[in-house]
Amino acid sequence: MNGELIGDKVILGGEALKELYDTSYYGRPRGATLELSLTEASYLLERAKITIVLNQRSLSFAEFFKIASMRMENFELKYLVYKDLKERGYHIQPSTTDFRLYPRGKRPGETPAEDFVHVISERKPLPLTELIFFMETAENVRKGILLAVVDEESEVTYYEVKRAMMKGDMKPVDHVKEEALLLEDRVVIFDSKLAYFLYHNGFFGKLLEERLQLSLVESAYLLKKKIIEIVDRSGNALSLRKFTGTATKIEPTFKRKLDIYEDMRNKGMVVKTGFKFGSHFRVYKKAEPMKRLQHSEYLVHTIPDDHVFLLPEMSRAIRLAQSVRKQMVFAYIKNKKVKYIDIGRAKP
Amino acid sequence: MNGELIGDKVILGGEALKELYDTSYYGRPRGATLELSLTEASYLLERAKITIVLNQRSLSFAEFFKIASMRMENFELKYLVYKDLKERGYHIQPSTTDFRLYPRGKRPGETPAEDFVHVISERKPLPLTELIFFMETAENVRKGILLAVVDEESEVTYYEVKRAMMKGDMKPVDHVKEEALLLEDRVVIFDSKLAYFLYHNGFFGKLLEERLQLSLVESAYLLKKKIIEIVDRSGNALSLRKFTGTATKIEPTFKRKLDIYEDMRNKGMVVKTGFKFGSHFRVYKKAEPMKRLQHSEYLVHTIPDDHVFLLPEMSRAIRLAQSVRKQMVFAYIKNKKVKYIDIGRAKP
Repeated sequence: MNGELIGDKVILGGEALKELYDTSYYGRPRGATLELSLTEASYLLERAKITIVLNQRSLSFAEFFKIASMRMENFELKYLVYKDLKERGYHIQPSTTDFRLYPRGKRPGETPAEDFVHVISERKPLPLTELIFFMETAENVRKGILLAVVDEESEVTYYEVKRAMMKGDMKPVDHVKEEALLLEDRVVIFDSKLAYFLYHNGFFGKLLEERLQLSLVESAYLLKKKIIEIVDRSGNALSLRKFTGTATKIEPTFKRKLDIYEDMRNKGMVVKTGFKFGSHFRVYKKAEPMKRLQHSEYLVHTIPDDHVFLLPEMSRAIRLAQSVRKQMVFAYIKNKKVKYIDIGRAKP
Repeated sequence: MNGELIGDKVILGGEALKELYDTSYYGRPRGATLELSLTEASYLLERAKITIVLNQRSLSFAEFFKIASMRMENFELKYLVYKDLKERGYHIQPSTTDFRLYPRGKRPGETPAEDFVHVISERKPLPLTELIFFMETAENVRKGILLAVVDEESEVTYYEVKRAMMKGDMKPVDHVKEEALLLEDRVVIFDSKLAYFLYHNGFFGKLLEERLQLSLVESAYLLKKKIIEIVDRSGNALSLRKFTGTATKIEPTFKRKLDIYEDMRNKGMVVKTGFKFGSHFRVYKKAEPMKRLQHSEYLVHTIPDDHVFLLPEMSRAIRLAQSVRKQMVFAYIKNKKVKYIDIGRAKP
């Protein structure tokens, strides 16, 4: 079959409608002709299913590839992803969001597409706002999103992006109100009864012999809930505002971390530091007072609402979470509400 | 035994020389008395081995702890690390670099200390220059370094820092000189003979059907070695300078990546992208032409020579490398020479 390259489309005659469209779902019918996108045409040309002419001359694959890459932005990347998904046996169609992907084993017409596929180069920074826009667009038509990230060596990695449901079963701890001491950058409770109580009933802090070391967010949270009082080394009691001010000097993003910590604690989750995993928090859904915590389900990293993801960094965070069997969640605050996005490796 | 808190020392009488110094290696003799550092004193006080007086009054552990934290910078952190290493059964002594650590099972006097221990808070950024200074100071007296990083919840993670020896067994590829095409942000070789040759003999690029996709660093390296020529889509041949300029627009740190890539290739290593691991490169020591690459030994991340490590980020990189059984290496350029630092989790 022979097609003609016109602008960023390849137009084939009526016989293609039957052979390519009806049986294999390539292209879109335009009256008696079939119109292929450059990625579709390239795929069929490489497989020698079609020939393509321009100015009465048949194009080699290399010639077509070069011209296509000048006529369509990111053609090389899109073609890599198109081809990869085709070879995995999926039906995939061009769309305003790069591609629409059909569920495995399902054909267009039989079921609606399941995911929007967005093709991105590893090198292109991805603003959170853009990611949210992708997500909301897809949500509105009940589809998922797949980010197809193409690396330097043209390998494709897929990420699934969805909202995370954060919900745990931890009960709030009772009010006890005892004194805790603010040292340089951490808070210590020397009263061993309170230390045991907070540790075993709320999984707050770390027990060292008979005393409890609290992190800054834990301390601020307990202070806010009026469960502890905090005094500095000169014996002065600190208000929440004063303590938050001190903590912000030590850690500039303290306020955001505290708000997100509080939101998760309020939702019944146990939240501990995620330092060893390079994230702000590790988070447990299940917690039984007086028992040891088991496996944490999430790594949560807090980001500002104008955050721009660098994909190699995002990749590292997700890869690490996966290697320790946790879900990677990014948390941000929008209009005073905490939002959670779960980004995970997908294996289509 | 009773000691007196004077400044940032605790001074004990002659009987301590025998009981604490001779048998357990605490403190330093000063004439007929024994002088303990605040960390040593705190450890012995918590274990009720000594009492400590200030102004004729015996101090509780909580009182002593509070005073010590005002008299010594980072006292809480240092005490946590001191105690942790003691409890792991090590002999450890105060030093200008926080502590000196003796080999497991060895006592001071019996052998020299093996490592300098530097105590750092997770929150404190660590300049590369400072890390190099630590390393060179230790190298001069043939010791290793252990970074003891204390996280928010007072957990200690240890890192070993050393120079990495980068050396592989890959032979350079011969000159062939064929044409490659620069597309938007990658280079393609359509000549299938050259494609196979470069891929199978040098592990360059990624084979897609009959063509080879090269990354920007690979392309610049092959151009510099006069193994390929690069033309743009208008058919113009590009000089190395021109190509590097274009690549730098796409990737601002291109020049540094290229210099380090070249250095490793010159040392006989096979260097591929490390995107999936969030690093610049994954690196193989062993490579046999015409065979598949086996397991890569290193993840290499390039950093500027004025880099400042954020410890949670560093922790993430190292943790990830470890989870895929690779060593994490940071590479930088100093006085036109490429240097490699290997940072790994240590389990003392």
